[in-house]
Amino acid sequence: MGFTLAELARLTGTELIGDGSFEVTELTSLTRASESSLSFLSNDARRAELGNTKAGAVVVSRAVADDLKCGLISSDPYHTYAELSVLFDSEGIPFSGDINVTAEIDSSAIIADNVSIGPGAVIGAETVVGAGSVIGPNVTIYPRTHIGLDCLIGASTVIGYDGFGFARSEHGWVKIRQLGGVLIGDDVEIGAGCTIDRGALDDTVIGDGVKLDNQVHIAHGCCIGARTAIAGCVALAGGTLIGSDVTVGGMTGFTGHLSVCDKVHIGANALVTKSITVPGSYLGGSGGVMKAEDWRKNAVRFRKLDALARRLSELETRLETDESRDL
Amino acid sequence: MGFTLAELARLTGTELIGDGSFEVTELTSLTRASESSLSFLSNDARRAELGNTKAGAVVVSRAVADDLKCGLISSDPYHTYAELSVLFDSEGIPFSGDINVTAEIDSSAIIADNVSIGPGAVIGAETVVGAGSVIGPNVTIYPRTHIGLDCLIGASTVIGYDGFGFARSEHGWVKIRQLGGVLIGDDVEIGAGCTIDRGALDDTVIGDGVKLDNQVHIAHGCCIGARTAIAGCVALAGGTLIGSDVTVGGMTGFTGHLSVCDKVHIGANALVTKSITVPGSYLGGSGGVMKAEDWRKNAVRFRKLDALARRLSELETRLETDESRDL
Amino acid sequence: MGFTLAELARLTGTELIGDGSFEVTELTSLTRASESSLSFLSNDARRAELGNTKAGAVVVSRAVADDLKCGLISSDPYHTYAELSVLFDSEGIPFSGDINVTAEIDSSAIIADNVSIGPGAVIGAETVVGAGSVIGPNVTIYPRTHIGLDCLIGASTVIGYDGFGFARSEHGWVKIRQLGGVLIGDDVEIGAGCTIDRGALDDTVIGDGVKLDNQVHIAHGCCIGARTAIAGCVALAGGTLIGSDVTVGGMTGFTGHLSVCDKVHIGANALVTKSITVPGSYLGGSGGVMKAEDWRKNAVRFRKLDALARRLSELETRLETDESRDL
Repeated sequence: MGFTLAELARLTGTELIGDGSFEVTELTSLTRASESSLSFLSNDARRAELGNTKAGAVVVSRAVADDLKCGLISSDPYHTYAELSVLFDSEGIPFSGDINVTAEIDSSAIIADNVSIGPGAVIGAETVVGAGSVIGPNVTIYPRTHIGLDCLIGASTVIGYDGFGFARSEHGWVKIRQLGGVLIGDDVEIGAGCTIDRGALDDTVIGDGVKLDNQVHIAHGCCIGARTAIAGCVALAGGTLIGSDVTVGGMTGFTGHLSVCDKVHIGANALVTKSITVPGSYLGGSGGVMKAEDWRKNAVRFRKLDALARRLSELETRLETDESRDL
Repeated sequence: MGFTLAELARLTGTELIGDGSFEVTELTSLTRASESSLSFLSNDARRAELGNTKAGAVVVSRAVADDLKCGLISSDPYHTYAELSVLFDSEGIPFSGDINVTAEIDSSAIIADNVSIGPGAVIGAETVVGAGSVIGPNVTIYPRTHIGLDCLIGASTVIGYDGFGFARSEHGWVKIRQLGGVLIGDDVEIGAGCTIDRGALDDTVIGDGVKLDNQVHIAHGCCIGARTAIAGCVALAGGTLIGSDVTVGGMTGFTGHLSVCDKVHIGANALVTKSITVPGSYLGGSGGVMKAEDWRKNAVRFRKLDALARRLSELETRLETDESRDL
Repeated sequence: MGFTLAELARLTGTELIGDGSFEVTELTSLTRASESSLSFLSNDARRAELGNTKAGAVVVSRAVADDLKCGLISSDPYHTYAELSVLFDSEGIPFSGDINVTAEIDSSAIIADNVSIGPGAVIGAETVVGAGSVIGPNVTIYPRTHIGLDCLIGASTVIGYDGFGFARSEHGWVKIRQLGGVLIGDDVEIGAGCTIDRGALDDTVIGDGVKLDNQVHIAHGCCIGARTAIAGCVALAGGTLIGSDVTVGGMTGFTGHLSVCDKVHIGANALVTKSITVPGSYLGGSGGVMKAEDWRKNAVRFRKLDALARRLSELETRLETDESRDL
């Protein structure tokens, strides 16, 4: 497989610099490039890397175009890289293209045209899978789940299992039957090993264009707004409402029954314990998130907390001494 | 499906208020209710919500019964809701009712009557599954696992895999063969995507009535006491011993070879690094848990740690100035 | 199954103390031992436990041999225990020995001799599985994954799924097709419920002798050096480079695009946000890791942060009073 650089300029709507007949055989990172590679520089601050790469051609922004001998100028090199990744993907989405004979599909499920279902996948009763969706191997879709158009679901993910709901009684826990479903929009990607529970009463809702990384846990009754992206191993407790265009770093948790407004960006490994009502960047630990700039200041101080405590003790001692002297 | 309110009063042992012939067609939350809904108020402090709901009938406690025109009075509205959830569950537990033909069951496994096994489930040698248990799709039960009566196990969960045990040698890690099994009591619910390892020498034990949410990890040789409930994404390192009637919030970790006494309640996203010997509520972060009230005070101070450090610096400066002046 | 103590001394290269004809029927912990048990003491500091065990024979180090009436003296009792665990393992590795008929293996996959593949496992196109490897039940191997010799992979693990890569656009997220593969060395153990993503451009690499516990998440483009051991529920964001002979405690995260040098030991539930370039022990929370001794000092102070803040307030008040008095 290969393209000339001129072809790639045309296919991606970018501006050609240098030899248009240059034969590109692979798309690589700057560091692992060969002479026939096309690579990309997505961060202008790293323009010095252009001097060290072996890549025959590079996609760059106009701001660093002066450094470029051969390549493509793009208004958004990372976006152009995404477009190029499709051109250089000789395989296509794995396990797409058919419904595997080993998949177990309930007769009441409604499977649209052009749906792929991987080996060992299990599709429960009264589910709906929209056109163009790809269900990975060994995925389990419990009954009453609706999956929209063009969704991609990674292997071993479980959608629609019962939420974790119990009432106490004298004899232990009484299970609350979960009566809601899961409603997944269009163009949603859900990674491998995720769990998305059905609602207790109302549906769990995943909006259009949402992207979930691997091992994400979404409890019953959560709603996630359009285009929100959630990194690996994040967990949402029951009833968490997350707005649109939110990003969440890996391993972050939400304690449930709270809401996060649109355009909030939360870092990794934090715990969200209260609603967030102002867009912006937030960081935190188990004590809850705060504005990212405040967290950074506090976290730096924590790294010297022992020294700070010693300074306080010294001050106390000095004052005691002064006061004894005064007496 | 529908019930009159009088029927529901009789079936749940609650007191009817208002029109007993009122036809209830669905069980909903207060916020998403319709005129033919039955809803519930489990927290008396939120009694103002009764004024805003569209629900035709509501289950409430006696303390707020004065506000109620039509509904049911219960000594425990949340428990009554659990009972109602069974009545309004037209489907029953998903994937229950049979042993799917695609399940792979070792010929030496002992499967009691009335056991359900989902599609793609794998049941290893010398396992026992007690009557009434439901094994979800794509679950894997490794050899020598004993599962009690009336257990419910979510999809993709893995029970009885080898614990993580290795001895160092000059040439790297030497695997310690895991010789114990997993012993699961009666009425246990294990969520989707969980992993419960077999013991290194002694069995891993999950007591009667234990409830585990999704993506919980129980390492080798752990014991969990009766009726303990553990939320999503919690991890127990090897040899953690947890008492009875304990609750654990999501994403909390246990560093292993420690014990937690009965009736302890641990919050979300904490790390338990030492044994807990006194019942009560605990919270914490990566530095270990502490009594909940102490944690809250410290966590609040952390949010102003930078300001606190600045105040200390000011004090130091002022004292330096005073002392220079004194000279 | 049983061995005489003399046989076990010979098979493990240890020194016999006491009656060589003693019949050992089981290998147990000191606390759950019976009179015909062989147990082991791996920590000399716990030699007092030898007085309380019922074990008929114990493996100990030479340092505590004086306390021993019957047993084996080893230069490394824990390593000897590992060897004994093989002798007492009557079952062998579960689901080893064949390729189950329900496994779904792509015709282009290359499966070496002596490979075991569990029920429901799915092996994608152009994968390679080396001799002696055991693929657990319901495992999914996506296309272009190479697995070395003698690897062991736990149930429900997913290897080679797409990394989490998207470029922003006006219309939402544009998927970046993942073009790299996963390259796994020899003698690697991967637990149950893990997810290891394929690289975006370059391969994700897991070195020889690496051991991963359950529910570990390795994002695209990570490299893990030889013999590194990672405990349960750890997550590596994209492009994390970890050296050789590193150990990582459970639930710890890495924010990606950083490197950790050889022989680093990181505790549980920490967040690694920057590269580590000096071997040694590190601990931390969401604010990042630090040298273990520094973390411990700071964490102790945190437990009294509220008291520390009160002391500072008192000092401020006292100084204010002094200064007013001075006026």
